[in-house]
Amino acid sequence: MSENRHRVVIVGAGFGGLYAARALRKAPVDVTVINGTNHHVFEPLIYQVAAGVLSPGEVATPVRYALRRQRNAEVRLGWVTGVDTTARTVTAAVPGGGSYQVRYDTLIVAAGATGSYFGHDGYAAHAPGLKSIGDALDIRARVFGAFERAELDPGAGAPAFVVVGAGPTGVELAGQIAEISRRALRGQFRHFDPADARVILLDAADRVLPTFAPATSAKAARRLRKLGVDVRLDTRVVDLDATGVKVDTTAGAEHIDATTKIWAAGVAGTSLARRLAEDTGAPTDRAGRILVDPDLTVPGHPEIFVLGEAMSRDGLPGVAQVAMQGGTYAGRTITRRLTGRPNGKPFHYFDKGNMAAVSRYFAVADIGPLHLGGFVGWLAWLGVHLFYLRGRRNKATVAFRQLVSFVGRDRSESAV
Amino acid sequence: MSENRHRVVIVGAGFGGLYAARALRKAPVDVTVINGTNHHVFEPLIYQVAAGVLSPGEVATPVRYALRRQRNAEVRLGWVTGVDTTARTVTAAVPGGGSYQVRYDTLIVAAGATGSYFGHDGYAAHAPGLKSIGDALDIRARVFGAFERAELDPGAGAPAFVVVGAGPTGVELAGQIAEISRRALRGQFRHFDPADARVILLDAADRVLPTFAPATSAKAARRLRKLGVDVRLDTRVVDLDATGVKVDTTAGAEHIDATTKIWAAGVAGTSLARRLAEDTGAPTDRAGRILVDPDLTVPGHPEIFVLGEAMSRDGLPGVAQVAMQGGTYAGRTITRRLTGRPNGKPFHYFDKGNMAAVSRYFAVADIGPLHLGGFVGWLAWLGVHLFYLRGRRNKATVAFRQLVSFVGRDRSESAV
Repeated sequence: MSENRHRVVIVGAGFGGLYAARALRKAPVDVTVINGTNHHVFEPLIYQVAAGVLSPGEVATPVRYALRRQRNAEVRLGWVTGVDTTARTVTAAVPGGGSYQVRYDTLIVAAGATGSYFGHDGYAAHAPGLKSIGDALDIRARVFGAFERAELDPGAGAPAFVVVGAGPTGVELAGQIAEISRRALRGQFRHFDPADARVILLDAADRVLPTFAPATSAKAARRLRKLGVDVRLDTRVVDLDATGVKVDTTAGAEHIDATTKIWAAGVAGTSLARRLAEDTGAPTDRAGRILVDPDLTVPGHPEIFVLGEAMSRDGLPGVAQVAMQGGTYAGRTITRRLTGRPNGKPFHYFDKGNMAAVSRYFAVADIGPLHLGGFVGWLAWLGVHLFYLRGRRNKATVAFRQLVSFVGRDRSESAV
Repeated sequence: MSENRHRVVIVGAGFGGLYAARALRKAPVDVTVINGTNHHVFEPLIYQVAAGVLSPGEVATPVRYALRRQRNAEVRLGWVTGVDTTARTVTAAVPGGGSYQVRYDTLIVAAGATGSYFGHDGYAAHAPGLKSIGDALDIRARVFGAFERAELDPGAGAPAFVVVGAGPTGVELAGQIAEISRRALRGQFRHFDPADARVILLDAADRVLPTFAPATSAKAARRLRKLGVDVRLDTRVVDLDATGVKVDTTAGAEHIDATTKIWAAGVAGTSLARRLAEDTGAPTDRAGRILVDPDLTVPGHPEIFVLGEAMSRDGLPGVAQVAMQGGTYAGRTITRRLTGRPNGKPFHYFDKGNMAAVSRYFAVADIGPLHLGGFVGWLAWLGVHLFYLRGRRNKATVAFRQLVSFVGRDRSESAV
C-alpha cells in the first residue's frame, strides 16, 4: 500500500466487487474493498439457508479469506454512507460505532440492490425479502416458527404461506416450503398434519419464471403444482398486513389468510445509488438504479464504475453472471487505462443461461437453445452452482447436503 | 394423548429433559416436553460454534425431530414462567406473544442454569457467557469483529482477549481464540499481524481445570502456554467494564486492557428454580440451585424431579453426564411408581470421566485411573463426543469438520 499508487475503492464484496478485485490483482493499483459484513455471500443459494438445508457459513466466505493472497488488496469493514465525487472520497460507517474516509482515484460501486415494495414499505415488516444471510435466518425462523405455533393452537390447523413473486427466488422458496411441509416435518406434530399447510405462490405475470422460455415456465409450474403449491398467476397484491394479503385477479378481489408471507418481487437501487445519482446528475431507471454508459461508468464520470444490480443497462437481468462479468470488465478497463493501452470494447454480457431449482432433484434451465427440466436440469444446476461456489470445503459440504438433506428428512439447520 | 393418562411435563429439552423423555417411551404416560427454542443443543460443542468451526445446526437437533417416533410424547414451544405446585400446572410464554397452561401429574424441571456473575450482573453486557447458540454467535461476532476493528485502526495494534474462568469452557475458548489468531487468520490483515493478539485466561484457582487431576491440569496449562495463551492463576476479577478487567493477584492489583471479554466462570440457578424453591420451601445451594432428595425430587414433593444443572446434590458437577443419567433415572422411577414396582435405589452418578479439548489434535481426559493428554486424548475426546451427538448426519459433518477445519485454515463459519 502506498499513498502514491492509483487507488481503486470497491464498495461491496458481492460477485461484482469480488470479481473486480480479482481482475486487478496484477494491475499497478492499491485496491480497498469496503463491505458492511466480513463475508461475501453466494446469493444463488441463500434460499437454502432460509429453508434449513444449508448453514450461513456454507454460502458465505470471509472476504479477507477470499483475497488473502492478493497483496495489493485490503479489506475494510464498513457501510458506505456517502461519496464526495469532487474530493474523491467515500465515507463509511463502522458497525458498532465510528466512521472513516477513504480517498479514491477510481471508484467501483458494486453495492447491490434492496428489495422493492413498489412504494408500500409498510409491507416489509410482514413480508421480508431475501437479500442477505440475516433475511434468510429471519425467513427460516418465520417458516419453522409457523408450524410450532400451529401445534400450540390446534383449532387453527396447519399454517398458510404466501410467496409474492414467481421469479427464481419465489419459485425456489415456494418449492422448499412445500417440501418442508410435505416431507421434512412429516410425523413430527401431534395436533395437525404439516402436509396440510397451504403454500401459495403469486405473480402479476401470466407465468412463473417470466424471464425464462415459456416451455420452461410451464415445466416449473407443473412441478410446483405437483408438490401442492397453489400457483396463482395474473394476481396482483393490493394490500398486505399481519393477517394476510389482499389480491386483485381477473376474477375480482380476494383476501388470502396467511400469517407468514415472503416478498420475492422487485428490486430497487440502494440509497447509496440514489445519492450518487443526485450528486452526479446521472439518470436512473424507474427502480432507482443508475443508467450507466456502455463502459459501465457513470455519465461524465469515467472514474466511477457501477456494477451488477446497482446499475441499469439494456435491460440486463439482476443475476450473478451480469455482476461477475461486469466486475471483470471494470478491472480490465482500469488496467488498460493505467498501462496506456487503448480503450477496449463496450461491456458485452455473455448470457450463459438461466436456472432455477424447483424441488429436490428437479430444476429447470435455459442454456442457449436447450430447455432442460427435471433430474437432468438439476444435475446442470448443481454442477454450475458448485463450480462458482468459493472454497473446496464449501463445495464439498454443499454437494453433500444436496444429496443427503434431500434423501433424508433431517433438516439439521432448522433450529430457530 | 388422553386426559386421563398420567401426564409428565418436562421443562427443558437439554440432556436431562431429552433422556427423561426417552426413558418414558414405554411408560403408561403422556409426555409433554416444553422448551424455549425448537432445538436440543449439544452443549459440549457450542464453543466450536463460537470459534467458527461448526454451524449452529451441527450442534442442534430439532426437539420434535428427536422425539418424532415416540408417540406418547408431544413437544411444545414455550418459556416456562411459573409453576403452581398446588393446582399442578405450569405456565409457559410463547416466543412472539401469548401464553398457555399445562396440567401435570409429575413435573420434571430440567431447565439448566444461567451464567453467574457473582452479584455483578453489570459485567454481562461486556463479557457474555456461553450457554446457548445465541451466546455462541454473539461471542463469534465479538471475536472476529475485534480483528476487523483492529484493521480499521492501525495504531491500536492486534486485539486482546480475556477469558474469565479456566474450567473446560474457558480452556477450550482460550485455546480456540489462540488458534484463530495464530493460524486461521494468518496473512489476512494488512495493518497488523493477528498472531500478535493477546489471549489471557484468568482463574482464581491455582490451576486450570480444577476439577481434573493435577497432572492433567498441568498438561493443559503447558499446551495453552505453548499456543501463546497467557494463563494467569490465583487471579480474581474485581472489576470489569468496556475497556478491560481489573484483577487482584498475589502481587497486587492490575488493569488488563481488553475490549473483548468472555465469562466462563460460575453458574447460577434459573429464575424458575428460584421461584420453585420459594413456593415449595425447598433449600438451595449458594448458587440458587435446588438441593434435591436422594431420588432427585424436591423435599416434600415426590412428584417434582429436578435434573442436571438445575439441581444440587453431593457436589455433582454440572456436566452432560449428570443430566443424562439423572434424566434416565427420573424416567425409570416414574415408570416404577406407575407399574406398582417398589421404589428403586437412590440416584447414583457413574463418573465416566472428564475431558477438555485444548487445541487441534490435543485434548486432556481423566478416565478413571487414566490421565490422557495430547493426540490420544483428542481421539478419545472425538470418539466420546461423536458417540453422544445426535443424528448420523451431524456425526458425519462434525467429524469431517474436526479433521478438515483444523487441517486447513478456512473457518467458513466465521462470517459475522
